Amino acid sequence: MRYKILIQYDGGDFCGWQVQPDAVSIQETIEEVLARFLQEPIRIIGSGRTDTGVHALGQVAHFDTEKPVDLYKFIRASNGLLPPSIRILEIEEVDENFHAQYSAKGKIYHYHLWFDEVISPFVKRYRTHYRKRVDLELLQAASQDFLGTHNFSSFANQQFEGSAGKNPIRTITRISVIPQEGGVRIEFEGNGFLYKMVRNMVGMLLEIASGERPREDITKALALADRTFAGKAAPASGLFLAKVFYPPAASK
Amino acid sequence: MRYKILIQYDGGDFCGWQVQPDAVSIQETIEEVLARFLQEPIRIIGSGRTDTGVHALGQVAHFDTEKPVDLYKFIRASNGLLPPSIRILEIEEVDENFHAQYSAKGKIYHYHLWFDEVISPFVKRYRTHYRKRVDLELLQAASQDFLGTHNFSSFANQQFEGSAGKNPIRTITRISVIPQEGGVRIEFEGNGFLYKMVRNMVGMLLEIASGERPREDITKALALADRTFAGKAAPASGLFLAKVFYPPAASK
Repeated sequence: MRYKILIQYDGGDFCGWQVQPDAVSIQETIEEVLARFLQEPIRIIGSGRTDTGVHALGQVAHFDTEKPVDLYKFIRASNGLLPPSIRILEIEEVDENFHAQYSAKGKIYHYHLWFDEVISPFVKRYRTHYRKRVDLELLQAASQDFLGTHNFSSFANQQFEGSAGKNPIRTITRISVIPQEGGVRIEFEGNGFLYKMVRNMVGMLLEIASGERPREDITKALALADRTFAGKAAPASGLFLAKVFYPPAASK
Repeated sequence: MRYKILIQYDGGDFCGWQVQPDAVSIQETIEEVLARFLQEPIRIIGSGRTDTGVHALGQVAHFDTEKPVDLYKFIRASNGLLPPSIRILEIEEVDENFHAQYSAKGKIYHYHLWFDEVISPFVKRYRTHYRKRVDLELLQAASQDFLGTHNFSSFANQQFEGSAGKNPIRTITRISVIPQEGGVRIEFEGNGFLYKMVRNMVGMLLEIASGERPREDITKALALADRTFAGKAAPASGLFLAKVFYPPAASK
């Protein structure tokens, strides 16, 4: 049987989603707990990797086991064994065709920015404190230039050797700049995102909104498809994987 | 000159407000930063101590210096030197008669409770996860039994030898139970609070709301003035010192 799980985590305590030598990843932390609960080795497949320090409100993963799983007990026991910075919110049995990465039809990311002079100690782990003066109207207007279907190569870091050959065409359907305490949250919704794409888009938006480069550079960067043109990625701490979408048929 | 400062902190990183041997306190962390900024030893006096793990949205302290203080520079520089878990929000010059502890006319504390099965990893440092079933209407109703002027000895731990002789009469003017994500926040407003008084009141309220003791025990405990009757203190992590009130004349 295949199971789909919904996961939240505070990425600040981990080296990212993916298993890495000599560092504690979110994936292996969960795999160890599931192996203890199910008394067999378990491999989980996530909807995608998140980098060191990136958080998740709604990461999705799947795993297979032939053992019967009491879903209520699973939630209680796994959260009892996991560190408090990782929580499994839901589990459901899914069709064997379901795949957390390949079945995903879209994602939402949130990027949290703090602009005020003094950042609250209670959210410092979850915001990027940006201290330059920002034109909020310009930030809002320029953000919309990313909408639509484009070659996002200018905004994609190479994740590993060979990843350059990956299809760089993505469609962004919604970008909302939402005021919140101390600053704004930018929500990005699309059919998929390349490696570091959200952080690179936010980096460019901040350069534009603080007057360091013209708004036209977004359209230029999309046309050039050249990573060196687009500038610096915004820090990991402000980024949350908020939601992963699947076709309705995925649940059993 | 005397200066009043408004401070926020995440108490989870410290051994509490007060200077203690072999542990890092909030008070000494701030004193060291102010001494570096002003180039002379600085002593700060807080409105009151907070225990290990207790947070502050609005702690107040004062200090004296004969050096001229550029207030804008002070905020920027001190927050640059402080760890991110402590922020100084405001500074103002006050009358020499102002005293952060003795001039205080009242305080507000917030206690944050999480009742849902799975606690969010993003607030785990700032909530008490209470897993017994709670009658929210009873919690709300019983909380109002603390209102008014009482001898709160039943709800006061002894802070140090000799503190038992302190006047245990306090007046609570407002207790609000406010629903929020995952549970509730209980706000306590009064002219002052004894050592561990809020946590002891919350501890009793939780015992009542989960059916472990009758609501009448609050009135009984207040009449008995006997600490052994009132039960266990709720954990520090859910508690915030939210606001300290002073007479309007305190500012210069």
